[in-house]
Amino acid sequence: MDQNTMQRLAADLGDLELITDSTALQRYSKDFSWFSPVLTEALEGKRADAIVRPTSEEQVRRVAAACYRHRVPLTLRGSGTGNYGQCTPLRGGVLMDMSGLNKVLWIADGVARVQAGARLVDIDNAAREKGWELRLLPSTYRLATAGGFFCGGFGGIGSITYGSIGDPGNVLGVRAMSLAEQPEVAEFRSAEARDLYHAYGVNGVITELEFALTPAMNWQEAVLSFPSFMEGVRFCQTLGRATGVIKKLLTLLADPLPQMCGLGKDVGEGRAAVLCLVNRAALEAVEEIAANFNGRIERQQDNAEVYGTAKSLVEHTWNHTTLHILRKHKDITYLQSGFRPWENVEKVEQMYRHFGDEVMMHLEFLKADGAVTCSGLQVIRYTTEERLNQIIQYHRDNGVHVSNPHTYILEDGGKLSVDPGQLAMKQRLDPAGLLNPGKMRSWDEKGAAA
Amino acid sequence: MDQNTMQRLAADLGDLELITDSTALQRYSKDFSWFSPVLTEALEGKRADAIVRPTSEEQVRRVAAACYRHRVPLTLRGSGTGNYGQCTPLRGGVLMDMSGLNKVLWIADGVARVQAGARLVDIDNAAREKGWELRLLPSTYRLATAGGFFCGGFGGIGSITYGSIGDPGNVLGVRAMSLAEQPEVAEFRSAEARDLYHAYGVNGVITELEFALTPAMNWQEAVLSFPSFMEGVRFCQTLGRATGVIKKLLTLLADPLPQMCGLGKDVGEGRAAVLCLVNRAALEAVEEIAANFNGRIERQQDNAEVYGTAKSLVEHTWNHTTLHILRKHKDITYLQSGFRPWENVEKVEQMYRHFGDEVMMHLEFLKADGAVTCSGLQVIRYTTEERLNQIIQYHRDNGVHVSNPHTYILEDGGKLSVDPGQLAMKQRLDPAGLLNPGKMRSWDEKGAAA
Repeated sequence: MDQNTMQRLAADLGDLELITDSTALQRYSKDFSWFSPVLTEALEGKRADAIVRPTSEEQVRRVAAACYRHRVPLTLRGSGTGNYGQCTPLRGGVLMDMSGLNKVLWIADGVARVQAGARLVDIDNAAREKGWELRLLPSTYRLATAGGFFCGGFGGIGSITYGSIGDPGNVLGVRAMSLAEQPEVAEFRSAEARDLYHAYGVNGVITELEFALTPAMNWQEAVLSFPSFMEGVRFCQTLGRATGVIKKLLTLLADPLPQMCGLGKDVGEGRAAVLCLVNRAALEAVEEIAANFNGRIERQQDNAEVYGTAKSLVEHTWNHTTLHILRKHKDITYLQSGFRPWENVEKVEQMYRHFGDEVMMHLEFLKADGAVTCSGLQVIRYTTEERLNQIIQYHRDNGVHVSNPHTYILEDGGKLSVDPGQLAMKQRLDPAGLLNPGKMRSWDEKGAAA
Repeated sequence: MDQNTMQRLAADLGDLELITDSTALQRYSKDFSWFSPVLTEALEGKRADAIVRPTSEEQVRRVAAACYRHRVPLTLRGSGTGNYGQCTPLRGGVLMDMSGLNKVLWIADGVARVQAGARLVDIDNAAREKGWELRLLPSTYRLATAGGFFCGGFGGIGSITYGSIGDPGNVLGVRAMSLAEQPEVAEFRSAEARDLYHAYGVNGVITELEFALTPAMNWQEAVLSFPSFMEGVRFCQTLGRATGVIKKLLTLLADPLPQMCGLGKDVGEGRAAVLCLVNRAALEAVEEIAANFNGRIERQQDNAEVYGTAKSLVEHTWNHTTLHILRKHKDITYLQSGFRPWENVEKVEQMYRHFGDEVMMHLEFLKADGAVTCSGLQVIRYTTEERLNQIIQYHRDNGVHVSNPHTYILEDGGKLSVDPGQLAMKQRLDPAGLLNPGKMRSWDEKGAAA
């Protein structure tokens, strides 16, 4: 952005500061894409020219209008806990930190209405005070914002019961603003709201979200161990399908992952670990089912006593498993894969036998299309990008879906296809194509074709 | 039972009255097996010689000891809402009405401990006062007892989320007494408790049960209508799999059943009806999904305002649908069938097309082995027992499981096989074979072989 544009932008923003401090620019333009050596290289040096930190929707509107008027790219950021460079501006411009819009607006009757920058932990705590809780939390819930989760996340803790935040009924509506001379704000409900889901903020500026909640539960956390990985898999599949056990988490770590991610004191070497959160009364049933697969409960604790601290087992699940391992081990990266229900056990075994120690199995059991299955957050001993792509290709060739976490392109990640609803929403709310440009290939191609 | 035995029994029972009034004997020996013309005929004239109505475990023990000492058959009864003659004594003897043991012992931390004769509605209300509720209720919950439900029931309202009461984690333990010179009482947990599940009281006298609860929910009741039955089926399958919608009930009635069971004011002639209970915030999602199948919400109401009354939609579901229709229409009976997940939609359509109006489709969607599927409580235009058996056989020949509700034999009903755990429990708690004799074929055959 040239100095001239910057000055006019600053003038339009009035008392809203335009931060250009180089340390801040560098820090705010980054997320957790350093998990991926590929993304680390690809996003090297990409950064915003300026940062704004609005604290009200009126200020957001000022930013949206100013960026539109001066045709300046605008990229949104929550807490920067994404893994795919969602908040990294590819073409400079303004980075808008949404974390100042952090109000929990209301909680009533099983619903939470919040501003986009509200942290999930704060929403969850506010909900718990009223007897409810969030259905889904990423492992980054202590930092992550509502808007960041919806725009760049998927699910996590809770997905074993509620699937993803994109499933109908989990997010009831969002309020989103357009980039225009006179930015408009509209409420999008149900299916329309989902056109803004997992779009990296390319197709609208979400200012508020409405989450469906679930009644607060007396969760018990348990670590179990199993003699072999496949016994752990079969246990998880059985527990996943056990409708009488209410579940919030069901994670399986193949040896040596428990040792690598800080669970060595609970789980002996050579054994697979299962981490779960279940309703307290279910512990007897869990123990009974585990015994059928030669497993045992190693340790348990009341989630209420460790919630929000590093002592909670959720710290070792979903992307936090990867985080802990990456921090301690070199030449490691990871994969995100989805196994189809009914064949997931068989396919997991096939991949496990094929790759051995090169692709270490971390499975998260969840609901997909209403059925119990698992996703993989495999930990990979990284050699080259070519080999990484071979590994991905082998999975795909064998019917295992891979959501490549080594790309910042929307369509190359989870969905592997153009989402017409997302595209139409971009046409509607960002006709000038200023929001997070370069992330949505279908938009860029549409532009090139026009 | 001869007068001599009766007198000795009465002497042993002390102040516990032995009721022999003939009207009472007739009434207490019957349940709702009049749903079935086959059972009505088969059970004609079967009745107890005497009734006891204990109000404490000590009195139950006296009955168990006395019946054992004098080798008198002992049959247990809750509220008599069973449909298979569970409480009808085939060989006379004593009928023990358990409804006097009606205490809710305690409710804490997501668990309810109750006496066997406690009514489900009373347990549920007590749980709700503490922020919990029962996971599963039969449509007879206003009358049915905890023990009767566990020993002769399956699931019902709630099964779309929690499966059956036989699924691990739903019933945590039972306290059961043996028939012996010195009756013993023991606590059976988890898998052992399930050996007493759905055994019609043939293998132990349950005096207490421990139910896992679920946090109380703001249920909304809705009636929807669809132009065709198959659109209704596809809607239910989709809603059943929608993890973001919390569900307690999902019932589908093909035309003309809505007209026959009292829903004509809500649902137009020729249309299929869906009755559901979902979390209140999910109504938008339900409406959205319904629209995809050309359906619409006809009426909705707050479950809290109609709970426990005939106004609740649950009055038109599960076996209550059948009840309302049987009361108004002649030459009608019913079927109980189970469709396997993943092929249920296809098989339902096949049966629907094959039988047309002779087998009117009433489906209850539920979880089986963790997956969404449906069971059928088809309403049948009854002609002969031979034709009824043909209908059952056609279902079985085409891979549809039929739990024949036209038999009082345990093994010919739901499971279609001997349950070794049930049999072993009978050997342990009722070695003399006095409990509800004639209902468990595998025991009788074992006796004949010995």
